[in-house]
Amino acid sequence: MSESCDRYLAEQHERLLGELDALLRIPSISALPAHHSDVLQAAEWVADRLRRSGVPEVETRTVVDGAPPIVLGRWHVSDDQPTVLIYAHYDVQPPDPLDLWESPPFEPTVRDGRIYARGAADDKAGLFLTTAAIEALARTAGAPPVNVIFCFEGEEEVGSPNLSAFVQAELERLACDVFLSADGSMWSPDQTVLTISTKGLAGCQIDIRTGQTDLHSGEYGASVPNAAQVAAWLGASFHDDTGRVAVAGFYDQVRDLTDEERAELAAVPFDDDAFTTEVGTAARWGEPGWSSLERRWARPTVDINGIWGGFQGAGAKTVTPCESHLKITCRLVPGQEPSHILDLLERHVAAHCPPGVEATVQRQPGSARPFAIHRDDPGLETARQVLRDLFGKEPLVIRSGGTLPVAEVFQTALGVDMVFFAWSLPDSKMHAPNEWFRVEDVQRGARAYCAYLFALAR
Amino acid sequence: MSESCDRYLAEQHERLLGELDALLRIPSISALPAHHSDVLQAAEWVADRLRRSGVPEVETRTVVDGAPPIVLGRWHVSDDQPTVLIYAHYDVQPPDPLDLWESPPFEPTVRDGRIYARGAADDKAGLFLTTAAIEALARTAGAPPVNVIFCFEGEEEVGSPNLSAFVQAELERLACDVFLSADGSMWSPDQTVLTISTKGLAGCQIDIRTGQTDLHSGEYGASVPNAAQVAAWLGASFHDDTGRVAVAGFYDQVRDLTDEERAELAAVPFDDDAFTTEVGTAARWGEPGWSSLERRWARPTVDINGIWGGFQGAGAKTVTPCESHLKITCRLVPGQEPSHILDLLERHVAAHCPPGVEATVQRQPGSARPFAIHRDDPGLETARQVLRDLFGKEPLVIRSGGTLPVAEVFQTALGVDMVFFAWSLPDSKMHAPNEWFRVEDVQRGARAYCAYLFALAR
Repeated sequence: MSESCDRYLAEQHERLLGELDALLRIPSISALPAHHSDVLQAAEWVADRLRRSGVPEVETRTVVDGAPPIVLGRWHVSDDQPTVLIYAHYDVQPPDPLDLWESPPFEPTVRDGRIYARGAADDKAGLFLTTAAIEALARTAGAPPVNVIFCFEGEEEVGSPNLSAFVQAELERLACDVFLSADGSMWSPDQTVLTISTKGLAGCQIDIRTGQTDLHSGEYGASVPNAAQVAAWLGASFHDDTGRVAVAGFYDQVRDLTDEERAELAAVPFDDDAFTTEVGTAARWGEPGWSSLERRWARPTVDINGIWGGFQGAGAKTVTPCESHLKITCRLVPGQEPSHILDLLERHVAAHCPPGVEATVQRQPGSARPFAIHRDDPGLETARQVLRDLFGKEPLVIRSGGTLPVAEVFQTALGVDMVFFAWSLPDSKMHAPNEWFRVEDVQRGARAYCAYLFALAR
Repeated sequence: MSESCDRYLAEQHERLLGELDALLRIPSISALPAHHSDVLQAAEWVADRLRRSGVPEVETRTVVDGAPPIVLGRWHVSDDQPTVLIYAHYDVQPPDPLDLWESPPFEPTVRDGRIYARGAADDKAGLFLTTAAIEALARTAGAPPVNVIFCFEGEEEVGSPNLSAFVQAELERLACDVFLSADGSMWSPDQTVLTISTKGLAGCQIDIRTGQTDLHSGEYGASVPNAAQVAAWLGASFHDDTGRVAVAGFYDQVRDLTDEERAELAAVPFDDDAFTTEVGTAARWGEPGWSSLERRWARPTVDINGIWGGFQGAGAKTVTPCESHLKITCRLVPGQEPSHILDLLERHVAAHCPPGVEATVQRQPGSARPFAIHRDDPGLETARQVLRDLFGKEPLVIRSGGTLPVAEVFQTALGVDMVFFAWSLPDSKMHAPNEWFRVEDVQRGARAYCAYLFALAR
């Protein structure tokens, strides 16, 4: 059965590339209101693509007026077969800085076996390949071997603000046994991965006020609190001298890594020097007692994303600033709860703020719990088998330091764990100029989705 | 003789107010290129005012093409009399924020005995009153009792960038025995002052770089240095926990205050609580072991004027910033040399910068040595007598925490100490909206300059 799909996908390769090209030409930038009609056009294009692929129930659902719709596709083949829910997104990041693109971001161009376009890797190819797979199954077998639900959103790049409400409202229609995300990456061109966890997120802005007005630093600086200095003190207070987080209680709920987990992490090929070269820093830094990968993937952090106060212009302005700000996010690991961590941060700021200085902690929206897949998830095991068969070697078990609210939304609401099953490469310039996706992965990726659905069938 | 001047000034009061009004109407904002022609117009107005007052030698001198000229006036009456050099400036600060002005900044308006206008207190009234005094002397006595040189600049509000070159080039024509500044303040409406020192200044910008690009805080934040965090560490490193400067060697050259000096400072009426209320802070802060006035006037400081790095917009951006910046100025006291202090700062930054992080110290122009008047300066003693006679009580001996490069320029080049002799009040909103000068001080101030010149005559 799978062979027929492979043959079909090979025959249709050029046409499918042409269709992907058409999707990539739609500048569906969810962050920019000027592109709202393009986002809507992309939703219609995707819905139409599902219909043309043979999916019997397709609709575009607007959760909140003015928000990009969720494209929902359902193909129920049998109550005796499991149901797989496939997630992807059709919106893209803004393309700027435009002058760094070698070809225009919305005019897909093939060079050296890569399709260059905004959204190629994140996540239009991923989305498109799942529709190519369902088309191949429809044309060669009449229907997929299992029940399939497609859930494609258009707000991933702006934090999926309406996805949770949608899932809550559609618990019944989204009920599934396995949950695949077509938004993700491999480790390298010949090494696939199983991603078993992502970090949670909790963020706040700290607004510091030392007085009613900026003051002359000569006349007053020696004798009154300086908000820029308080920002520095608070900013420096979150870690001790070794790099360990110094917020009281921060590590209390962290679930320790088991020896197996540390061994699994140690098995991931990783070279510290190559890493620093790749990310462009001259040094590494972090919590003592842990490897770089453990720090990135399995240890919680407090990060200063921004700090500002006082004069930033050219030259000198001898001012004692009266206000300053810090933007802080924490990345959380299993056991840590965002709202509790924000409580701890708030207490820390109150305890470290000098007398007579106001420091207000504004909690930012976008908190997310850490996500970890259950190791016995049936979708994970299927992914392992399919990837092993397709690539002839075991997938690497990895984690992500990033945060994926969608994983936690579905896990909490539907009780299913997200299984990443996707084909972008780590260096494919997602969110950056000259984003690309490999031409050869268009066939390979679609074949993999077909194989996955066959493997899942009872 | 002085009585004739007083009478003349009383008779001419309304006309003189009208002339001051005309000067205040010229928006001679030196910081704004769009107002360059207004600055030139003010210079011409001032030169003309000196000529009409009877000053025999008046010229406008452009030191550097495109810079506002220095207006130089000389009235040599006798080789047997001392020479007094009078300094003031005809340029003003920008008036914004305009919406906070109760009457337009360049339409002088009298309310409750005050003339409200930009430049009223700083320094057009001061400048004008010296010309009114010389006019009174010319009309009543034919000439001033001592030799007088006027040196009025148009770049004070932008840091007097060309004054030093001018003084160096004109050492002979500026040679004098006493040096008066008509740019300054009293303590309160009935309490005059003798200002005996101003602080020096040394400034730098610290540019911090941790890598080549901002990084995703989830993927990388746990494992690489964060430039915003380094800015916080460095910003926090300049002081110890008590508020004392922690830069090695910073206090080494500071000349200790004598018991007399501490007693003199303690004699200045000063209320800590009233001070915090006045400046709008809820607390005081500073080097331990010193009073607020000692901190402000007699102890050196390191001040953070600005700090910035990473994301400052609305909401969250989960970035690990690769660059950040600090703007630092130090206020210096006698004994400290700006270039040496910058050497110490540079060493401090190198010693406190984490491995693999670049922190570059850019020295800012505008360094100035601290200034302290010689206690036996003849001009100071004359000022004490004249102020005691005019106000019926001893002037208060004070210091300034601000920096006055002009004082040090003249002291070094001409060997004369600047004596402040001026009539603005501390709350007269210099550099702020609704700047004012008291109507009654127009006569009183001009009388005081006449009295000063008479007191100086042999």
